[in-house]
Amino acid sequence: MVCFFIFNLQETWERGITMFEKCLNGISGLDEAVMEEANRRSDLKAIPRGSLGKLEDMAIQIAGMTKEIHNHIHKKCTVVMSADNGIFEEGIASTPQHITALQTVNMVKGTAAIAVLSKQAGADLKVVDIGIKGDINCPGLINRKISHGTRNFLKSPAMTREETIRAIEIGIQVIGDLKKDGYGLVGTGEMGIANTTTSTAILMAFTGMDAEEVVGRGAGLTDAGFQKKKRVIKEGLRLHKPDKNDPIDVLSKVGGLDIAGLVGCFLGAAYYRIPVVVDGVISAAAAYVAYKLAPLCKEFMIPSHRSTEPAYIAIMDELGLDPILNMNMRLGEGTGCPLAFHMVESALAIMNDMVTFDDISQSSDYLEGLEYDA
Amino acid sequence: MVCFFIFNLQETWERGITMFEKCLNGISGLDEAVMEEANRRSDLKAIPRGSLGKLEDMAIQIAGMTKEIHNHIHKKCTVVMSADNGIFEEGIASTPQHITALQTVNMVKGTAAIAVLSKQAGADLKVVDIGIKGDINCPGLINRKISHGTRNFLKSPAMTREETIRAIEIGIQVIGDLKKDGYGLVGTGEMGIANTTTSTAILMAFTGMDAEEVVGRGAGLTDAGFQKKKRVIKEGLRLHKPDKNDPIDVLSKVGGLDIAGLVGCFLGAAYYRIPVVVDGVISAAAAYVAYKLAPLCKEFMIPSHRSTEPAYIAIMDELGLDPILNMNMRLGEGTGCPLAFHMVESALAIMNDMVTFDDISQSSDYLEGLEYDA
Repeated sequence: MVCFFIFNLQETWERGITMFEKCLNGISGLDEAVMEEANRRSDLKAIPRGSLGKLEDMAIQIAGMTKEIHNHIHKKCTVVMSADNGIFEEGIASTPQHITALQTVNMVKGTAAIAVLSKQAGADLKVVDIGIKGDINCPGLINRKISHGTRNFLKSPAMTREETIRAIEIGIQVIGDLKKDGYGLVGTGEMGIANTTTSTAILMAFTGMDAEEVVGRGAGLTDAGFQKKKRVIKEGLRLHKPDKNDPIDVLSKVGGLDIAGLVGCFLGAAYYRIPVVVDGVISAAAAYVAYKLAPLCKEFMIPSHRSTEPAYIAIMDELGLDPILNMNMRLGEGTGCPLAFHMVESALAIMNDMVTFDDISQSSDYLEGLEYDA
Repeated sequence: MVCFFIFNLQETWERGITMFEKCLNGISGLDEAVMEEANRRSDLKAIPRGSLGKLEDMAIQIAGMTKEIHNHIHKKCTVVMSADNGIFEEGIASTPQHITALQTVNMVKGTAAIAVLSKQAGADLKVVDIGIKGDINCPGLINRKISHGTRNFLKSPAMTREETIRAIEIGIQVIGDLKKDGYGLVGTGEMGIANTTTSTAILMAFTGMDAEEVVGRGAGLTDAGFQKKKRVIKEGLRLHKPDKNDPIDVLSKVGGLDIAGLVGCFLGAAYYRIPVVVDGVISAAAAYVAYKLAPLCKEFMIPSHRSTEPAYIAIMDELGLDPILNMNMRLGEGTGCPLAFHMVESALAIMNDMVTFDDISQSSDYLEGLEYDA
């Protein structure tokens, strides 16, 4: 089934139908029958019904994705999409732009936070240069560079529609490759100075929410920088009037290559039926665009931590996703994903290894002299 | 230092001064100087200040406990205290009483939820019979039985003061043994049908909160059972008038052996300077009693998941602890602890393995042709 999908998608692409269109059309929802059976099995566990909460829910949700009751994660990884954003030049970020490239290298070298947390979780890390401004010569970095950063969206749309769809297709392909390589759980991370600006602009374009409600301080803006960030986003939206009914229009005008790559990861995860973890606000913005393109892909998403960025909370409300971790984190990079992987694997362990009420009665062999009247 | 503490406590006990008193007197707070240095090191990490939130906080807190900046958890476990509660006979639980014994056996056999989640986290599980009604012949179960369950607190105090302090000392000793065996992280679990009733009674005794605010449905009470549970707790408190300024009075009159054993675990963890994870409402009630006995022991506690039991939320507010997991769980057994262990170990990995801003600058060797004006 899997190989068929991969082959099919690749073949289609070669025939000239875009991989993007094929992917969108190939997404179907969770398998209700398998979920019902998984739910029945979960109810047989020797615990009060529903008392393991989201551990039970996640195991049932994943059964609906894979169409198997019992799932085992043999390989897992976070995909990081790294790219620079032209809007940086407006002075809306607290961090110098070359940090995108430097931190990308640190991720590949294994010393950045996402790398440390991935190792701790027994997870791999795939770092993709989808549009970093500089050229990086670093073994292990996956080079899929579309451009040397996007354009400043106060001067022109950040990307063309064609660039945007190419970036999405790179994300889809990365997930297809992971599926082929036996990965059963993926996370979504990013590196791209100024990408809380692009993420928040996307949210505002879709929802009409006000800058005062949803713009945050990113990595730590000053008051002046914070005011400028709000003005810049409002001005960009006024200038380009992105069409909220055309997600590619929104994404290309005020988004970024990192976000577009992650949109592809979410679409690809739904297409290849792999659970995909949402990290912070940038990852959430990508999840939101993917949802707007193919609403069913939401069913393959697993939230991780409740980011402190205001736009994050608004997006998760829009998606109806309730984060499982409450860590006061706001780093990005995908750092919520390896933390959530532990929870996903714990959920699967409960489904796979826990006793049922039938099993439990056998344990009475161990009891002596019980005198209960209950 | 550690051996000295253990020896000292044991010796004292043999000399006739109670282990309980010695433990209370031997608890001191976090080491401020080590925490300041840990905080400084955390600030040097190549991330925006504070952006890893509670991962940073936990690593600093644990440095204050162990007096070491870099901590590695070689062994970790959850301690489960199992006991029956006399108040069960009033019909305030939805589960038959013999489930205490049966689930205790399933924990030892490795098939209960806490055992499955512990294995998933690479953690051990120590299950202590501190007062189960029946006698259990099960290899691996630690027998420290004080009585065959407590008394019905609508008829007499649940325990004598002497039984209560003995149960606390068992908890202290269990932690002392774990420290000696090289454990660096512990969790607190329980098994005891009717123990949300005793836990909530303790909270109400200390705070004067109303039954309508804090009594929950436990494992799944009917409406009638729920009304009865509220009446029984109010009646027990009216009957015994526990003195909120005397935690042993509160614990002995309306508490249980499981909770008392866990009080000892919290006190022991603070005494032996080991991080201790709080699980759900019963574990939280024990943490609260321990805090009332020795306020500084709070500094050694790490919250896990936000239980859906109303008393849990009230106790955590009293303790000023903010749960790190949002899983809609309400099983107990200690199930939040192995989940939280993953977060604690992730926190220590960040402190131990992540690059600083000094290291990051070396990564520029990998960059070519960068032309930044920032």
